[in-house]
Amino acid sequence: MRPAPDGIVPLAPPPPLPEGGLRVVALGGVGEVGRNMTVFEHDGRLLVVDCGVLFPEDDAPGVDLILPDFRAIESRLDDIEALVLTHGHEDHIGAVPFLLKLRPDLPVVGSRFTLALVAAKCREHRQSPVLVEVVEGQRSQHGPFECEFFAVNHSIPDALAVAIRTSAGVVLHTGDIKLDQLPLDGRLTDLAGFSKLGDEGVDLFLVDSTNAEVPGFVTPEREIGPVLDGVIGKARQRVIVACFASHVHRVQQILDVAAAHGRKVSFVGRSMVRNMGIATELGLLSVPDGLLVDIDEAMTLPDHGVVFVSTGSQGEPLSALSRMARGEHRQIRIRPDDLVVLASSLIPGNETAVFGVVNGLARLGARVVHQGNAKVHVSGHASAGELLFLYNAVRPSNVMPVHGEWRHLRANAELARFTGVPANRVVLAEDGVVVDLVDGIARITGRVEVGHVYVDGLSVGDVGESTLSDRLILGEGGFIAITVVVESHSGRAVAPPTISGRGFSDDPKALDDVVPLVEMELSRTEAEGITDTHRIAQAVRRVVGRWVAETYRRRPMIVPTVLPVGAP
Amino acid sequence: MRPAPDGIVPLAPPPPLPEGGLRVVALGGVGEVGRNMTVFEHDGRLLVVDCGVLFPEDDAPGVDLILPDFRAIESRLDDIEALVLTHGHEDHIGAVPFLLKLRPDLPVVGSRFTLALVAAKCREHRQSPVLVEVVEGQRSQHGPFECEFFAVNHSIPDALAVAIRTSAGVVLHTGDIKLDQLPLDGRLTDLAGFSKLGDEGVDLFLVDSTNAEVPGFVTPEREIGPVLDGVIGKARQRVIVACFASHVHRVQQILDVAAAHGRKVSFVGRSMVRNMGIATELGLLSVPDGLLVDIDEAMTLPDHGVVFVSTGSQGEPLSALSRMARGEHRQIRIRPDDLVVLASSLIPGNETAVFGVVNGLARLGARVVHQGNAKVHVSGHASAGELLFLYNAVRPSNVMPVHGEWRHLRANAELARFTGVPANRVVLAEDGVVVDLVDGIARITGRVEVGHVYVDGLSVGDVGESTLSDRLILGEGGFIAITVVVESHSGRAVAPPTISGRGFSDDPKALDDVVPLVEMELSRTEAEGITDTHRIAQAVRRVVGRWVAETYRRRPMIVPTVLPVGAP
Repeated sequence: MRPAPDGIVPLAPPPPLPEGGLRVVALGGVGEVGRNMTVFEHDGRLLVVDCGVLFPEDDAPGVDLILPDFRAIESRLDDIEALVLTHGHEDHIGAVPFLLKLRPDLPVVGSRFTLALVAAKCREHRQSPVLVEVVEGQRSQHGPFECEFFAVNHSIPDALAVAIRTSAGVVLHTGDIKLDQLPLDGRLTDLAGFSKLGDEGVDLFLVDSTNAEVPGFVTPEREIGPVLDGVIGKARQRVIVACFASHVHRVQQILDVAAAHGRKVSFVGRSMVRNMGIATELGLLSVPDGLLVDIDEAMTLPDHGVVFVSTGSQGEPLSALSRMARGEHRQIRIRPDDLVVLASSLIPGNETAVFGVVNGLARLGARVVHQGNAKVHVSGHASAGELLFLYNAVRPSNVMPVHGEWRHLRANAELARFTGVPANRVVLAEDGVVVDLVDGIARITGRVEVGHVYVDGLSVGDVGESTLSDRLILGEGGFIAITVVVESHSGRAVAPPTISGRGFSDDPKALDDVVPLVEMELSRTEAEGITDTHRIAQAVRRVVGRWVAETYRRRPMIVPTVLPVGAP
Repeated sequence: MRPAPDGIVPLAPPPPLPEGGLRVVALGGVGEVGRNMTVFEHDGRLLVVDCGVLFPEDDAPGVDLILPDFRAIESRLDDIEALVLTHGHEDHIGAVPFLLKLRPDLPVVGSRFTLALVAAKCREHRQSPVLVEVVEGQRSQHGPFECEFFAVNHSIPDALAVAIRTSAGVVLHTGDIKLDQLPLDGRLTDLAGFSKLGDEGVDLFLVDSTNAEVPGFVTPEREIGPVLDGVIGKARQRVIVACFASHVHRVQQILDVAAAHGRKVSFVGRSMVRNMGIATELGLLSVPDGLLVDIDEAMTLPDHGVVFVSTGSQGEPLSALSRMARGEHRQIRIRPDDLVVLASSLIPGNETAVFGVVNGLARLGARVVHQGNAKVHVSGHASAGELLFLYNAVRPSNVMPVHGEWRHLRANAELARFTGVPANRVVLAEDGVVVDLVDGIARITGRVEVGHVYVDGLSVGDVGESTLSDRLILGEGGFIAITVVVESHSGRAVAPPTISGRGFSDDPKALDDVVPLVEMELSRTEAEGITDTHRIAQAVRRVVGRWVAETYRRRPMIVPTVLPVGAP
């Protein structure tokens, strides 16, 4: 558990929520990109929107996932009326099984595709959640919360925005959103619906901030198709296209281009196979008869007769694409003139991994097309121009930018102000900050602790700051372990100390000077009559730490172990 | 030392260089961005161009610098006629002191500003190198190598390209280059000179590949000035501009804008103060009288009366800017409406660090302008459009793309072919690949080993793959240390084992099950009559490793220490 950094809002429990008020607290996703989860409270009851995971960066080494911090609701699980999911991306649904472990009967509300992905995820966790399917235009009542759902477009089908009506007023939460005016499935973001809601009066507007810093408008998804057609049409050999396993419309365009050029398609990667199966079943992906082949059959086809659609677009080291780049894939060996297309975003933090894959492929002779050299990706999040459309449609009384790092939140706040929202009605919050909507005015009233909850292997929460801080030290400098056996009554060393270093040096003689150094220190402690093993260990740590700093100017972890033998 | 990866060219010593031939081997900088160093051999003598460092990424944790691998020339140091430096960036001069340690009297050839930076660097290493100053247009003879120097523009003043004439033919090495047609100092890249050299015939052209993937042309540096004027002119409070400490023209524009708005300027950061001192002395930076103030004086000025020009643009954690972002700077506390401008590139691999700083500043209320939201940076490297100009001017017989990762080299090779260089005359090499120019044709003839040489603290080369691999394991999973004292004659444990874990878990009970587990294993080894401490350690490692994998699904390093006591 990572403690929250010193806040712009000091940690302080909020005052009791006035009757008729609405409280909003993000347990993740505000001040960061990922693990989105927002809790709404009204009349003693709770409604949760989204429950996603965050993928760790360098500051959390060895960690698999970061979860929202459930502590703020742990004692009130029975007060939760429902979990509403805006769409099926991992940063919105990835932590659902962890919440359901605490409250298995919690109703999970979402669109058809979202719930299908949740169901598949829960099956892996051997859970059978209570699923409540909704569609855009529908209203549903959950305790004192009336939800109304709006179609929005994003980089996954079937995404929803949700309006929440209570006696405190109307809240609109965009989820992840963009305003593609020519969406592939014809399902427009319901700007007219937002506008009607705006006529009614939106008291608090929670808005996706991801691309608030980016000027202009996101290019329509359908413009990717012709670009793919251009690059794949010219390809002489095999084609491998990597993209997100949930990006059904991107995959649809790849399938269409493959079919147009007489190539079969093979899905590579477990989540790609699974999700495209679900999408086909739900009628969201249209696959011409006979187009799909499995990888074994694909390997028997001529090079110009196949397109592999693969996961691994973020450079994940174990993915098929990374294996190909290292020349380690069991079936697919990259050859000169193979074409690899990364039809995907470059998520900040993944640059080194992704370009490592690109370079590996280029080194083996492949031509690699990526968003840096061709228009093979468009974002799923509204740019500044689109956000202005949203503000002008909704005309909110209060705004709370969500889904973004501080730079994104601040840029989004500025857009809100440009459209006429008074500066003091734009609430810049972050995870844990308590925002109360009372009498039509949203105000920060306190802050609860929201830390990072780490999943490492099978266990949740036992890896925390102390462990991570040790990992960072060990990862930078390794350790030097010194083991000493002393007579417990005299503190006298009964044998020469054992020294071993790992992650410190390749030179087997690097630590040769440590034995005499420690022996000298042990003579000193013995002469001073020190028998306490803890004090002896401290002395050893100090003398070795000083030596290594002076000799190498390095800071490995110094790990002394002092074992007492004999009668005390 | 990192072994070279399996190459496209197998490791094999090249045949003897035919008389009259020229050999080219990169000891760094080809297949990677950084530590540029190329060795030319002719008639038994060597000429070295550049000697830079590479800043490590995630795969070399704890490492400060990566040097070119000198092994290929270590036995031939006396054959080196000179070290020619194209310009003063760290990735071209950073390893000079390490080469001079091996050969203190090596003549170091370069332009005035380049040599001033080298001299300053060597002073820190207590070296007094032999410096040979040259200017564009000049020729200099170094053994069998006649060098001719050409002005080029780049993101540092006084950069040079070098032509090397031998009886094998004419080689042109661009160094780092772009074709700004309106350079601030009026010093154009000498395209006419290149063209004249092309008339003479260029047999081998080594070309900067950094931006070969980027279509079009780099915006002129002077367009940054008006942008800075716009953002700084509107600022109400303090302004902090971060940029590279060697980017004299960028700093000049900041000074001019500050002066225009009645603000004083204070340099922050050791290298900024030092380099701008040198630039001023050499007449490369023009500082209006009374404009500069030191930081203490700056702190006494009104907020709208000062611009800080700071290092730290790459998110370096110890830099002034990072400290400000964390609220830890001794003097400068970020306040709402402070303006911070990152007038700098975002070097791949630094994204997380840089955006961490941006978010920290935004969180404290600063407005942060960076190349993602304003045109406050232009690259120092030619884009594809400019590279075409170069190829068309030089009309080389053979091309060897340098300075780039594989994706860049391959893109650059394609540009060469577009301009008419036959595909089989474009040599795609990487570090260690031996390219021989014989009878006007450049061919790969072998490959020597070129690894990564790591500097960690005071020592060079003792940190290698084994140490780094241990650091990566320790950084991901920490370690579990088990110390056991056994009777040497019986293998019987004389006390309960001591268990300690670091970087494994925050839960103090996480390893409680290990003691009985190890005790059981020790009973078994004792029963089997095993007394060899190494075998006992192996048994302990195995049983604890299996336990942790099953219980936690984690892979910490398991570190058993078995100490024998008593007479053997």
